[in-house]
Formats: sequence, C-alpha cells, structure tokens
Amino acid sequence: MEKLKDKILVLASKSPRRKELLSAIGYPVAIRPIEVEEDFPVHLSAAETALYLSALKAEACPQPAKNEIWITSDTVVSIHGRILGKPADKREALQMLRMLSGTKHQVITAVCLRSANQKRTFYETTKVTMKKFTTAELHHYIDNFHPFDKAGSYGIQDWLGMIGIEKIKGCYYNVMGLPVAKLYAHLGEFDIPE
Amino acid sequence: MEKLKDKILVLASKSPRRKELLSAIGYPVAIRPIEVEEDFPVHLSAAETALYLSALKAEACPQPAKNEIWITSDTVVSIHGRILGKPADKREALQMLRMLSGTKHQVITAVCLRSANQKRTFYETTKVTMKKFTTAELHHYIDNFHPFDKAGSYGIQDWLGMIGIEKIKGCYYNVMGLPVAKLYAHLGEFDIPE
Repeated sequence: MEKLKDKILVLASKSPRRKELLSAIGYPVAIRPIEVEEDFPVHLSAAETALYLSALKAEACPQPAKNEIWITSDTVVSIHGRILGKPADKREALQMLRMLSGTKHQVITAVCLRSANQKRTFYETTKVTMKKFTTAELHHYIDNFHPFDKAGSYGIQDWLGMIGIEKIKGCYYNVMGLPVAKLYAHLGEFDIPE
Repeated sequence: MEKLKDKILVLASKSPRRKELLSAIGYPVAIRPIEVEEDFPVHLSAAETALYLSALKAEACPQPAKNEIWITSDTVVSIHGRILGKPADKREALQMLRMLSGTKHQVITAVCLRSANQKRTFYETTKVTMKKFTTAELHHYIDNFHPFDKAGSYGIQDWLGMIGIEKIKGCYYNVMGLPVAKLYAHLGEFDIPE
C-alpha cells in the first residue's frame, strides 16, 4: 500500500508470534512492549473483554508520532460462557485442556489501531473444534511445549494444535494471536497523516 | 503413540511443506520422493482426482519394509467445478488468482498410507474464502513469492494467504498440503506389523 510507505507499525506486545504475523504483512515493524495489569470487569462477554483489554493497552501507549501506527491486541478463549486466559501452572493448563478436549470453543482477538489522528478498534472470532485428547497426549504436550504464555493453554501452530484441531471456522492467524487479513484491510482504510 | 515406536514414516514427496508438517507429529520421517506422470482422467471430481493421484503415487512406491509406513498425497484446488493444478508461468498464475479473488474455493488433499500389511486412503476438504485482490497485490505476490510449485498458485502460509484469506472452514494444514489431525487419527487406527 502506497499510503503506508515511510510509516512504521509499532507493536506494543512482546509476543514473538504477533511480531512474526505483523512482520509478514511487509511493512517496517518496531516492538515496544507496554506493561498493564490485565484486570477486567467480570460482567463482560468474551468479545467485550478482548476489546476492553486491547483498549486498556492502547491507553498505556505514548501518543503516536506522525509516522507511527501503534497496534495493541488481546486474545481470549471462550467456552460455554467462560473466558480462559493464560494458565498459572501445569494443573491449570491440564484443567483448561480437559475443558477444550472433544468439543468446540471460540478464540477472539481484539485489535486497537492508533495513529496521530485516529483510533480504530475491531475484533475477529474463530471457532475451533478439537478432538478428544488422551491423558497421555495432554501430559506429553504440557511437559514438552510449556503452553503457559498462551490463552487457553495451547498454540494452534504447535503439536497439540496440529494433531488435535479437526477444523476451524474463521481466520487461522486470529487463533495464533492476530487477525492478519482483517488488520491489513483496516490499515488500508486507516487515516494516517501524510 | 506406543505402537509407532521404532517405526518410520516414509514421505514420498519432495515438498518441504509436507516434510515440515509430517515431522511435527513427532515420529521419525524419511524423505524418498518418487516420480510419476500426474495424468488423470478428465471426468473425475476434484476429490476423485486427488484420490486417484495419491493412489497412483502409492503404486509407484516400493513394497514397505516391516518398520515403514509410506505416505503419498495429492492436493488440488477446486472452483466452480474446475480443478486448478500448478501454474506453468506467471500468466497462468495470474489467471488462477483472478479466478480465486473475491470468492470461495475448496482445497482437497488426499492421502494414501501403506504398511507391509495394509493400505488406507482418505481425503479432507477445506473451504477457503478470499478477499478481492487488487492487480498490484497479485503482481507483488507472484513476482516476490513465485508460487509456481503450488496448486492454485498460492500458499496459505505466505503473504497472499495471510493478508487475503478472510476465513477457512476445515483444517488449515490441509490447505498447506497435509491434513495433519486426520492423518494422526488414521495412523492411530492403522495396522502395522509388530
């Protein structure tokens, strides 16, 4: 996109997966993680929670320079009205994966874009269907892949996701942490200073 | 899986993507590409074509040793009753991508498994929805990513797939070239000599 020439996408996240996905779009990317307490009101839906947290992160960022577009985002896993975040330990990871095993859940990523003159927030939902895992498979996964930095305790791109996700409905990269196609479309419509 | 201990998965394909996907399952993989003329009867459906070609490749393989499981596969892209294979040149790639742009198509991968005592064939279908591409985007993609080894002229895992696939319905890895979750499930039921 001609309009993004000389602009820089500033990713306010330390997730190596998000960096990889954002970089794939093909524009210069800078990484400047910001720290926020990820507390959210309990009455929110899963989509509202992701939107709330991505906006909270956006508010913690500095005012964008003229050539910058800041990107914050948040991914949550939702199943039967419950929101799953990152597991604290092996016991919790096992508990989450047993909940997801043999059934469907939703992964929602909300994204907040900010330039010097505009702010835009959107989210994307992907439905995921998982096979029924054996206890041995779950232990093998947690012990070897340590999914403690991942909402819902799994990565679609690693072993458990590859052998265990029967199908998805929606955007794959959204489950990895960034809805790349939708983000690219929004960047095309975004108001950026010349 | 305990039963696959001391076995080796022999992949009869030179596709680096298939090797990567098969290796992710976690068993030893050997690569022994076989050459066949990929001719097929024109009256076949897309699924029948993929099954026919994966079986044709299986027949060209040597008889499996006791510790081997041979894997052959074929991926086709199907749109409005037409089957798209690999493009011969830039002109054909552009023509295929214009056909896929702004609409839905299906990706079908058929897989043939062979051990010393059993043969098993199956396929998986994934529906893909693509955004409408600009001419500049298509030229940028073909000139920089050279998708001449790919059925339908694109890879879901590279730039065009990332910015342009709005959603899929089914298995993501099937579009890359191997339905990993289904393959894993079939390996679990497969008859392998002790």
